Amino acid sequence: MTLQLQCFGESGNSYKAALALELSGLAWEPVFVDFFQGAARTPEFKAINAMGEAPVLIDTDHDYSITQSGAIQDYISHLSGKFAGNSPKERREVLRWVLFDNHKLSSMAGVTRFLMNFLPEDKRPQEAIAFNQGRLQGAYAVLNAHLEGRQWIVGNDITNADLSCCGYLYYPEPFGFDRAAFPNIDAWLTRLSETPGWKHPYDLMPGNPSDRA
Amino acid sequence: MTLQLQCFGESGNSYKAALALELSGLAWEPVFVDFFQGAARTPEFKAINAMGEAPVLIDTDHDYSITQSGAIQDYISHLSGKFAGNSPKERREVLRWVLFDNHKLSSMAGVTRFLMNFLPEDKRPQEAIAFNQGRLQGAYAVLNAHLEGRQWIVGNDITNADLSCCGYLYYPEPFGFDRAAFPNIDAWLTRLSETPGWKHPYDLMPGNPSDRA
Repeated sequence: MTLQLQCFGESGNSYKAALALELSGLAWEPVFVDFFQGAARTPEFKAINAMGEAPVLIDTDHDYSITQSGAIQDYISHLSGKFAGNSPKERREVLRWVLFDNHKLSSMAGVTRFLMNFLPEDKRPQEAIAFNQGRLQGAYAVLNAHLEGRQWIVGNDITNADLSCCGYLYYPEPFGFDRAAFPNIDAWLTRLSETPGWKHPYDLMPGNPSDRA
Repeated sequence: MTLQLQCFGESGNSYKAALALELSGLAWEPVFVDFFQGAARTPEFKAINAMGEAPVLIDTDHDYSITQSGAIQDYISHLSGKFAGNSPKERREVLRWVLFDNHKLSSMAGVTRFLMNFLPEDKRPQEAIAFNQGRLQGAYAVLNAHLEGRQWIVGNDITNADLSCCGYLYYPEPFGFDRAAFPNIDAWLTRLSETPGWKHPYDLMPGNPSDRA
């Protein structure tokens, strides 16, 4: 096993990389980062990723490691030839949606879900949560409108755009996303989850909330 | 003039594209988007950019348009051969920092600056502002630590990583960024601003708060 993904189940950013690895057919293994015990804030971890975040992909064969889910996806595409788009324009359109996801969708969904589910109830900043949820409605609407009449976000195949934007959208913990209110997103998530090899985040990566229950 | 950038001065995301265009040596012209009068929310504009945001780059010679500052920078690098990094690993490292910027830095700085400066005082969500400012301190610390002993974020030259992360950091309006508290960021911003051809956002793009004073 040459590709190791340092990740944890609750991390939608880790899921973007784990799902790309799983669907790429590359051999890989998850390595649990005990984020909720502070494992991502240790000097040892920050020596690997100064950004102090999961996921981290380590390619021992090539003595190479890379962080940021979108950059890991780029490397997985480099190794597998998959998910990057079929032309320079498609590749840039994939990048555009990966950036949209990082800017407006997963970044907001991830922090909002964390605040609503993984902080003690008396420590949840309700105004910030409501503000983030409002911003997220705009992001869902943009994605839902784009998916009108489309099977996938870019072109005719699954790309890193799909594998990025779905990062937080399969999780059961509430963060204000009403899948039924966005029928094109709902159908696209179903389409992706019916793809051979797809797995739910909690089936693909170690660690989930029940471990801490 | 074949490259038109639809932009406005207050937009740090527009600035990322405008500064890349200016420093690339490509011929371009800014086209004012009157964002504060709702110009980015019109059907005409959304027909160009369903994401409803500036900037938008239009290449009339190639009948091509692209949005998202990081994707526009990718296209500018495609046209100019500049700012993308000098190897596949550098290119991916540039992408990693552009994603970090979109995820943690410019996305948070842009909205926080908007809330603190461009909303009526009685409509400013103070808890959300404070929460965002707290998250931003972590992003500044990551960038400041990375810049220790470095001239530029990736490699030995200005890349899109620099031109992305600086997007909001030259603006005079307060959003909780204390440049003096992050000496490596301070020196890097000075280094970039002393690069021949560099211009301040309000000197590079039409529109600034004094127009509405």
